[in-house]
Amino acid sequence: MKNVFIIGVGLIGGSFALDVKSIFKEAKIFGIDINDNHIAEAKTLGIIDEKADLEDLPKADFVILAIPVDKTLQLLPSVLDKVKDSAIVMDAGSTKFDICKLVENHPKRRNFLAAHPIAGTEFSGPKAAFAGLYKNKTNIICEVEKTAFKLQEQALQLFQQMGMRIRYMNPEAHDKHIAYVSHLSHISSFMLGKTVIDKERNERDIFDMAGSGFESTVRLAKSSPAMWTPIFKQNKNNVLETLEEYIQNLNEFKTFIENDDFESVYQVMSNTNRIKEILKGIN
Amino acid sequence: MKNVFIIGVGLIGGSFALDVKSIFKEAKIFGIDINDNHIAEAKTLGIIDEKADLEDLPKADFVILAIPVDKTLQLLPSVLDKVKDSAIVMDAGSTKFDICKLVENHPKRRNFLAAHPIAGTEFSGPKAAFAGLYKNKTNIICEVEKTAFKLQEQALQLFQQMGMRIRYMNPEAHDKHIAYVSHLSHISSFMLGKTVIDKERNERDIFDMAGSGFESTVRLAKSSPAMWTPIFKQNKNNVLETLEEYIQNLNEFKTFIENDDFESVYQVMSNTNRIKEILKGIN
Repeated sequence: MKNVFIIGVGLIGGSFALDVKSIFKEAKIFGIDINDNHIAEAKTLGIIDEKADLEDLPKADFVILAIPVDKTLQLLPSVLDKVKDSAIVMDAGSTKFDICKLVENHPKRRNFLAAHPIAGTEFSGPKAAFAGLYKNKTNIICEVEKTAFKLQEQALQLFQQMGMRIRYMNPEAHDKHIAYVSHLSHISSFMLGKTVIDKERNERDIFDMAGSGFESTVRLAKSSPAMWTPIFKQNKNNVLETLEEYIQNLNEFKTFIENDDFESVYQVMSNTNRIKEILKGIN
Repeated sequence: MKNVFIIGVGLIGGSFALDVKSIFKEAKIFGIDINDNHIAEAKTLGIIDEKADLEDLPKADFVILAIPVDKTLQLLPSVLDKVKDSAIVMDAGSTKFDICKLVENHPKRRNFLAAHPIAGTEFSGPKAAFAGLYKNKTNIICEVEKTAFKLQEQALQLFQQMGMRIRYMNPEAHDKHIAYVSHLSHISSFMLGKTVIDKERNERDIFDMAGSGFESTVRLAKSSPAMWTPIFKQNKNNVLETLEEYIQNLNEFKTFIENDDFESVYQVMSNTNRIKEILKGIN
């Protein structure tokens, strides 16, 4: 693992670079980004050693694409075209079906590892990157059998050294489940933020009355629209299904309140308290 | 401030007691609770000095009702009946209109301070209580002019020593705004939890794929149904209004996705990103 290329030097790519550097002292980190300010920032912050461009990819041993999922679809085939036979190319996107489909017949499919490290914060850009982001996080790998065994091994060893748990899934299952436990959370949070902002034109009132509960539920509404729009586009059908069910549940709860059926209001909340045990599992 | 009575020795009452004790070393804390286990726990944890009952209230200098808001409606008039003329009785409920209305003509109205300290966690019971919960939090006081001036002064001094910011509002405005920045967050979180639990019968999948984003948005779904059901009941009209608008926004977002209008999906998220600045104000 000598020449490591980070395509997209933001939170995900930048944090990955910092971990790689602390594991492989001799690694040289190259940064590729359409935003020159991000490249400059990443250099200043010690995230990358050198700016590079796509024409430099033939010397890469490891490439991570950490860019919005629509950009990954555009870029991945040509990245695979350029790398040498022993290179590993991984993505880190929150959708897996389209990307796996896109390269299923690519002559360098064996160099690609379709991955989704479940890690991040609501912030973005190189300044948001930090070492240790991936520690104790789950990395979901799809269609692992399509990646060359030797390259799998190398990548898995790196993930283990970074402290990640590995889980294998097919792309369809990944996209379906992640719609529930991640994509829907982002929509509920964005729409909560919108509802409150639309109503509370006087921000002082929000500021004074909002507590940690509000903060927790709208935190994800700070997320990057450039990252999330293509995720919702690529995972359209699953996202629509989760949204449909979420809206149904909200309407049912609203009807309970309208009908003064507070017994049902109590019951549905009580049943949902089981989330405590599930969340304990996450920590 | 010698004899302090905590009615409801859970998170809110218990944390209040711990702060009072650290400020008034000579204060004696009496606990009243329908749950004997909680009284025992509160004693063991050093939250209260002694179990008491409602008949002991004539010796109280300060009483806080920290119980579900329906129970406060039942109990407050008789608490006021029992206390001496120099006693302060405050509540801590998340709804203010019904309680203020209930006692507006009570002969001891001047002993009552209608308060809502915006503080708490998703946990409940004496074990959830901790010193410092109220530090840097906002305490909303309604109809302060109806409380005897001398008692206002004493209470405000205590709140300041606990590190709370004070804000005055009328009960109607309180209930309307708090529906947006607190009550709606709880419903969005409970329904998110329900949607995911209904779908993901296999909890391992949730456990493995859920990240900090999901955890943050469903955190409030751990909250106590016994506390929240009467809040939604008392604030029915405001809660229904916020829910209506929230569901409308979700439906609009869903329609954008259905129609492949990802330009609008991007725009609405981008506009909502302004929540960053608002949340900065909270911290």
